[in-house]
Amino acid sequence: MKNREHLLIIGAGLCGSLLALRMAQHGYKITLVEKRPDLRKEKLSAGRSINLAFSDRAFKAFKMAGLEKKVSKILIPMHGRMLHSIDGETFLSKYSGRDDEYINSVSRTELNTLLLNEIEKFESVNLIFNHSCQHLDLENSTGVFFDEKNQQKINLTADFIFGTDGAGSVVRQSMQSQKDFLFSHSQEFLTHGYKELNFPPNKENDYAIEKNALHIWPRGENMLIALPNPDQSFTVTLFLAYEGGEYNFNNLTNPEIVEEYFKKVYPDAYEILPNLKTEFFENPTSPLGTVKCSPWYYNKSILMGDAAHAIVPFYGQGMNASFEDVFVFDECLHDQDFDLDKTFVSFSKKRKEDADAIANLALDNFYEMKSHTAQDIFLRKRKIELALEKKFPEAYASKYSLVTFKEEIPYKEAMEKGRAQDKAILSLLKHEKLNDNQSLEEQLKLINKTTQQLREGDFLLEN
Amino acid sequence: MKNREHLLIIGAGLCGSLLALRMAQHGYKITLVEKRPDLRKEKLSAGRSINLAFSDRAFKAFKMAGLEKKVSKILIPMHGRMLHSIDGETFLSKYSGRDDEYINSVSRTELNTLLLNEIEKFESVNLIFNHSCQHLDLENSTGVFFDEKNQQKINLTADFIFGTDGAGSVVRQSMQSQKDFLFSHSQEFLTHGYKELNFPPNKENDYAIEKNALHIWPRGENMLIALPNPDQSFTVTLFLAYEGGEYNFNNLTNPEIVEEYFKKVYPDAYEILPNLKTEFFENPTSPLGTVKCSPWYYNKSILMGDAAHAIVPFYGQGMNASFEDVFVFDECLHDQDFDLDKTFVSFSKKRKEDADAIANLALDNFYEMKSHTAQDIFLRKRKIELALEKKFPEAYASKYSLVTFKEEIPYKEAMEKGRAQDKAILSLLKHEKLNDNQSLEEQLKLINKTTQQLREGDFLLEN
Repeated sequence: MKNREHLLIIGAGLCGSLLALRMAQHGYKITLVEKRPDLRKEKLSAGRSINLAFSDRAFKAFKMAGLEKKVSKILIPMHGRMLHSIDGETFLSKYSGRDDEYINSVSRTELNTLLLNEIEKFESVNLIFNHSCQHLDLENSTGVFFDEKNQQKINLTADFIFGTDGAGSVVRQSMQSQKDFLFSHSQEFLTHGYKELNFPPNKENDYAIEKNALHIWPRGENMLIALPNPDQSFTVTLFLAYEGGEYNFNNLTNPEIVEEYFKKVYPDAYEILPNLKTEFFENPTSPLGTVKCSPWYYNKSILMGDAAHAIVPFYGQGMNASFEDVFVFDECLHDQDFDLDKTFVSFSKKRKEDADAIANLALDNFYEMKSHTAQDIFLRKRKIELALEKKFPEAYASKYSLVTFKEEIPYKEAMEKGRAQDKAILSLLKHEKLNDNQSLEEQLKLINKTTQQLREGDFLLEN
Repeated sequence: MKNREHLLIIGAGLCGSLLALRMAQHGYKITLVEKRPDLRKEKLSAGRSINLAFSDRAFKAFKMAGLEKKVSKILIPMHGRMLHSIDGETFLSKYSGRDDEYINSVSRTELNTLLLNEIEKFESVNLIFNHSCQHLDLENSTGVFFDEKNQQKINLTADFIFGTDGAGSVVRQSMQSQKDFLFSHSQEFLTHGYKELNFPPNKENDYAIEKNALHIWPRGENMLIALPNPDQSFTVTLFLAYEGGEYNFNNLTNPEIVEEYFKKVYPDAYEILPNLKTEFFENPTSPLGTVKCSPWYYNKSILMGDAAHAIVPFYGQGMNASFEDVFVFDECLHDQDFDLDKTFVSFSKKRKEDADAIANLALDNFYEMKSHTAQDIFLRKRKIELALEKKFPEAYASKYSLVTFKEEIPYKEAMEKGRAQDKAILSLLKHEKLNDNQSLEEQLKLINKTTQQLREGDFLLEN
C-alpha cells in the first residue's frame, strides 16, 4: 500500500468516526480530535438527540466499512408511522408498500461506541478527547485546540484537515471569518423549537406503546413524536412554536400549565409521561435550524456532515446524510486515485446539490408531519401510493421511499421526482381524475404521465 | 398633528433618505446619519453602481412622497433590451407589448441629491454625515457611531431606530452577533463578479449607441450590459465568472489579455471602450451576493432596504424594492394608526415574503439574461408574450411585466404567477401545442389553463 498522508479529523461524532475508520482502512495516518469526553465512559450531555433514525443510506455506508452485521444488532425496526389522534385512536401508516422497507431507531451512544471501538483497532489512529477546536488556520492547515484537562492551547498540523464538528462547526466559522475567498453561508431557524422527554418502560418492564413504530401525535401547528430505545423506554420529542397559538414554549412557564397542555392536547401520551413536570423544566429547549454553506473546502481543509449541511430532523435523514457523505467521499477518492486535492473538488461538486436537496426535503416534511398527515387528501394520496408500491414494487416509489429506501438514487433526483409526483397525485385527486373505477395500472400511468409533464416544465425553465 | 416620536435612521442612501423624507412629512423628529461624506459635495466612491434602473415600484413610492414630477426630470427611458450578437448585429426586445411600459436609467447621485434636498426643507430632520455606525445596542435603542472628522465615538439614542445601511449593514451585524433571539440570516455569492467600465460620448458628443435602451451582450456564461447616463456616456458592467471557462476574472491579469478578451467576445463594444485597459485595472471587481434575514426587527429597531434584503442586480429591482419598502411601511403605518411597535410587526410580516420573492426572481434572471435571451425557444416565448400583451393589454402580463410594471401586485404573487406562466408556455411550445394556426385568443386560453393547473399543484403541496 502507498504511503498515505496524515489527516486531522476534527470531531469524533458519528460522521467523523466513520470517516476516520474508513480512511484508516485505506492506510491513512489519522489524528481524530473530539472536544467532549469519551462517550463510552461518560454519560451523553443533554441537548443532543438520544436516538436517531437509521435507514438505507446509513446502512450502505456501514456496509462499505464492513460493519453491516455489527450495526444490525443494535437497530430497532420501525415499520411505519403510528399516528395518535386526540381521542386516543391509533393508526399505523406504513413507510412503504414493500414489506422489506422500514427504518430503524438506534441509540446515538451505542452507534458511536461501535465506531470508536473499531477505530481503536488501528494503530495508525491517534484518538484524542477533551480537546476543543478554537480556530483553524486554513493557510497553514493547522488547528488550534484547547486541552480541557491541562488547560492549555496546542496546535495540530496535518496534510489534510476534515471538519466533522457538527452544526456549530468551528471549522466552518473559521471559513466564515476569513477574507481570502467568498464563502456563502446561511443559518435559518424555524419558528418551532424542540424538547426531549421520556416514556419509561411500563409496569411489566416492557415498551409502554408499540415498539416497532415511529409514533406521531400530529396536532396542526405542533406535534409529539416518540422513538423506541433498547431499554424499553421511548425518547419523546415535543415540537412546539416559540410563540403564537394557545400554548407555546414562551408561555409554558410553570408545571400547572404544562400539565394542562399535555392533558388537553396529548392525553394518551400524558398518561405515560410520569416525569413530565420535572423533565420539561430540566431538559433544554433547543432551536431547529438549517445550515448551508459553499464552498465546503479551501486549500487543504474540508467540511463534512452537519458541519457542512445541518438540517432539521423531520425526514430522519440528518445522520443518514452524514454517513452517505463518507460513502460518496470514498467513491470520489477511488475515482481520483487517492489524490485528496482532486477528491475535495469532485466530492464537493457532486455532493453539495444533494445536501441542499435533503435540507429542503426535511423542511417539506416538517409541514407534512405536523399537519398534512391528518388531512383527507393526503391520506387518500398515501393510500394510493402504498397500493402502487405493493402492486408494482419495481415500478413505483413514493417520495418518502425514494429518499429513505432508494439509497442508489441521489437526494436531488429523489427530491425532484418525489415533489413532482406529489404535485401530480394531489392535482389529479383534486380534479377527481383518480378513482376506484380505474385499475391500479391505469392510475400509475396517469400519475407517471402527469409527473413527467411537471418535471419537463421545471427542466425547461432551469436549463 | 399628534406629537410624534424621535427616529434614528442609520444610512442616508436611497432607502434611508426616502424613509426620512416620508417620516418627516408625517411629523416625526428625525436624526439621519450617514457614514459617507455628503454626495452633493464629494464624488461618489468607487464600487457602487453609478446608474440604476428606476421603474414603476420606485415611481409609486416617489408619487406617495409628492416627488413624481421632480423625479421624472432625471429619468432616461429605456424601452427594451438591445441585444448585441457577437457579429455586431443588434435586436431590440421590448420590455412590454404595451407602449407605455418601459424602465428608466437614473443616476444614483442625482436621485440621492433630489431626496437630500427635499429632506433639508424640514427643520425636524437633523442630517449628519461622516459618522459610521460601529454597533447598535438593541436593548437600549442606542447606536454607537464614529465621528470621522473629530475622530471620536458618540452615542445616539432614539425612540425607534431604522437600519437602512445597505448590504453590509452594521445594524444587521448587531442583530447577528446577539444571543437574545434567534436570528436567521444568509449570504450567498454567485460564481460571477462584476466590474464597471464606461462608453464615453462619441465625437459628436452624443450617445455612442442607442440612448433609450438597456444594452446587453449575452455570451452564455458571461455578459456585458450598458445603461445610459445623462452626460451622453454609458455605464457598462461586465459580469464574468471568477474562475472556469477560457476567460475569467482570475486570469484577466494583464492589459493584453483583457484586450484580447474584449476584441474576441465583445468586438463592437471594444470599439467604444477607449479607456478599457486603464479602467479594467483601476475599477474594483465586486462580488454579487444575496442577503436574507429574519426577523427584520427586534425591540425598537428595524432593518429596511438592502440591509434587510440585498439582491443581485439582474432584475433591475434592488432600488425599486427598497423604495417599495418605504411605500409598504407607510401603508402599514396608516393601518396601525401610527403605532410604530405594531407597524414593525405588520410591515415585517407583510413584506418579508415579497423581499424573498424578488431575491429569487433576480437570481432567475441571471440565468435568463446571460443565456436564455439567445435561445430559440425563449425567443419564441417572448414573441408570443409580446403579441399577447399588445392584443390583450388588460388580460395578459408576462413575468417581467408583472414584476416590473404591475406595481399593485406584490412580488410574491408576481413570482408565482410569472414562473408558472413561463413553465406553461415553454412546455406548450416544447410539445408543439402552440402554433401560428391558432388565434391569439386560443393561445391565451391554453396558456392560462396550463398556468392555472401548475399553480394549483404548487398550492396543494404548500398548504
